[in-house]
Amino acid sequence: MINRPGKILPAPENFLGPEEIAAVRAGRRDFLRKAFALASAAAAGKAAAGVGDGDPAILNLPPHSTTLGKPVAFRGYGQPSKYESNLQRRQSPGLTRVDASSVAFTPLQGLFGIITPNGLHFERHHQGWHDIDPRQHRLMINGLVRQPKVYTMDDLLRLPSVSRIHFIECGANTGMEWGNVAVPTVQYTHGMLSCSEYTGVPLSVLLDDCGFDKKRARYILAEGADGSSLTRTIPIERALDDVLVAYGQNGEMLRPENGYPLRLVAPGLQGVSWVKWLRRIEVGDQPWGTKDETLHYVDLMPNGLHRQYTSIQECKSVITSPSGGQKLLYKGYYNVTGLAWSGRGRIKRVDVSFDGGRNWRTARLETPVLPKALTRFNIDWVWDGSPAILQSRAIDETGYVQPTIRQLREVRGTRSIYHNNAIQSWKVDESGEVSNVQVY
Amino acid sequence: MINRPGKILPAPENFLGPEEIAAVRAGRRDFLRKAFALASAAAAGKAAAGVGDGDPAILNLPPHSTTLGKPVAFRGYGQPSKYESNLQRRQSPGLTRVDASSVAFTPLQGLFGIITPNGLHFERHHQGWHDIDPRQHRLMINGLVRQPKVYTMDDLLRLPSVSRIHFIECGANTGMEWGNVAVPTVQYTHGMLSCSEYTGVPLSVLLDDCGFDKKRARYILAEGADGSSLTRTIPIERALDDVLVAYGQNGEMLRPENGYPLRLVAPGLQGVSWVKWLRRIEVGDQPWGTKDETLHYVDLMPNGLHRQYTSIQECKSVITSPSGGQKLLYKGYYNVTGLAWSGRGRIKRVDVSFDGGRNWRTARLETPVLPKALTRFNIDWVWDGSPAILQSRAIDETGYVQPTIRQLREVRGTRSIYHNNAIQSWKVDESGEVSNVQVY
Repeated sequence: MINRPGKILPAPENFLGPEEIAAVRAGRRDFLRKAFALASAAAAGKAAAGVGDGDPAILNLPPHSTTLGKPVAFRGYGQPSKYESNLQRRQSPGLTRVDASSVAFTPLQGLFGIITPNGLHFERHHQGWHDIDPRQHRLMINGLVRQPKVYTMDDLLRLPSVSRIHFIECGANTGMEWGNVAVPTVQYTHGMLSCSEYTGVPLSVLLDDCGFDKKRARYILAEGADGSSLTRTIPIERALDDVLVAYGQNGEMLRPENGYPLRLVAPGLQGVSWVKWLRRIEVGDQPWGTKDETLHYVDLMPNGLHRQYTSIQECKSVITSPSGGQKLLYKGYYNVTGLAWSGRGRIKRVDVSFDGGRNWRTARLETPVLPKALTRFNIDWVWDGSPAILQSRAIDETGYVQPTIRQLREVRGTRSIYHNNAIQSWKVDESGEVSNVQVY
Repeated sequence: MINRPGKILPAPENFLGPEEIAAVRAGRRDFLRKAFALASAAAAGKAAAGVGDGDPAILNLPPHSTTLGKPVAFRGYGQPSKYESNLQRRQSPGLTRVDASSVAFTPLQGLFGIITPNGLHFERHHQGWHDIDPRQHRLMINGLVRQPKVYTMDDLLRLPSVSRIHFIECGANTGMEWGNVAVPTVQYTHGMLSCSEYTGVPLSVLLDDCGFDKKRARYILAEGADGSSLTRTIPIERALDDVLVAYGQNGEMLRPENGYPLRLVAPGLQGVSWVKWLRRIEVGDQPWGTKDETLHYVDLMPNGLHRQYTSIQECKSVITSPSGGQKLLYKGYYNVTGLAWSGRGRIKRVDVSFDGGRNWRTARLETPVLPKALTRFNIDWVWDGSPAILQSRAIDETGYVQPTIRQLREVRGTRSIYHNNAIQSWKVDESGEVSNVQVY
């Protein structure tokens, strides 16, 4: 069809037939009569102040229905409603020695769908964040390449780009739970988790551009430009698969606290591998064993050895509402909602239990269900006022089933910090209060 | 598999074999030698100031690589980089008598992927915007229903919800082009276009809850709470299909200028039907013919009659970069990128021409390709320095092909304001400057 001229299909529903036109005209003549009918219907429906129609003086309409509002482009780059100021990233005070190496958690309990707004994306820095001038920023590719190169941002923006939606989760997310600490809210238990649409250049394109040594290359090292010189090793087959050198996040440039102007996007891998303020990629034939992969981000196993390079975030899920710290005010129907994700691909199914894991029902998955992205699930629940324990259990397309905390501890012990993907339990008591409990 | 206990699959790539462990240990001993090798490699790679490794004093590292940065949660709700302040919604001054009934256009030329950040979503108000207190806001459903009801926001948030990604386009988008006005940039030609993930209650759930009259119901009326009392008629079969009563946009609550706390999401229909600050849904058996659907948002046809209820946004596309007002600074490779969409479903294909429509090549579509959502396309182009005319032509899953402006005018004449979905042409001249031209 390449050279065929465009064809305009008819759009019959865009035209009204004679009957409809007559009906419209009749309707217009009935305008006043209708307006009064509406006003009485509103009264019948027990409309609160501010709902109604007809004469403002009679119906006590609120100012926003009777006055001129604010103009367009009033606030430059737009901001949330003043009534939403409680929906913020939050820091866990005292978690680290200085706030520049701390964490600010995403408020999952108040979010919808799968996209995390950039202003609420979780933060984890090793030496604080900077707003780097993109005209000065450079990316070097060196090591086992025919031609080491240095790219400007302009260079990168001209190259072939792709856009993909992926989750990012810090390897330490839900880390406090290893030691039986019942962190109160889902913001603090699971809030080192976000999901965005990223845009950038496939790393494979850049490695090809530099002529990487296909026979000897086994790993790449990604290095950040912050003071911590964060460095991470990634196997070459993964680097050539779906890893991006990204500049775009949710339609705009990355935010400074998330790596502006350049970060590595390493789908399915723990967040620390998504190196921010990316300044260098080195191609090598062995893992580097840097401080960030030997001293930190290792899992202490029951036999006393450290498990290293545990990069992939296994299948996991959590109910975000109702969740810890919330309160059910009424008995009756609730839409129970949460998130599921897997570093190995798509979510296949999410089951939800309301009795601590004895019985399970399958939840609805919202579209689109994308590989290595958050998947939103919803399920109907009628609360009868008796105590309940809510759990979600995700299954990914490899057949892997999210484990219980007991199963996970049998393999991994209790002294880990990282990679806790156990089923989360929220207890609803008779007063409707929701709290974090561990179920065995 | 419902009641089967979770199974933990082995993760072999998470463990290093003896060879890798030995290599890591060797690598660690070689740390200093490596650091010096990196420094010389950086020099060989013609690293600019700010790129390098090793001793900061020798390599003149920038401050962000040698100092402690800012702490987490530094700015509350996060903001873009100070270097991105030029990426703003923009108003076309004098377009309307007061700025409260004007338009602020989305800067499509600077956006990536398909998600529009909420802070850059286009604005079009009929009487300005307000920040409505959600505790006071109500939604009434009345008309041909067994039980008229008034819902609070709490009521709505407890009901079954869905999340879906959809575009919204004002019916007047690209309207100036009917009259041969060459608007200079894609922000002003096509910027009444955005795309978000919306979350809300299916309208069908609410209509069922009120017991709408399935025999007599043929239309619904949606009414906003702003001073203009914006009202729009929608056929019942569409209202029952994919229309949402939405409170969430891109993960958070709607923004005030886009209808906080409640708006109708009417996928595929022109933006005016996505009623903001939604306060009432009425079920009826005939179209209402309100001012917003008889005086405005009608198409003046060549025979002098008005086409009414032209709700569906037909298949359309536009190249966003390079686009009007930009300049190509170098010959050689460019990633040409743009957006395609259709109110009737998925985009099937986008073709791009670099010679004003004589030859066409098929572009790459980024995933996910979703129904009634923006689709991002990319295509490789090597500019040889000679003049070129860039065009994109979208085809949707119904087989409809985006028309040329000539084809569109043959049917619709030249006096319309709304529903111009013609192929857009950008001319690149020998200096690299890009401008808006009409090609016949």
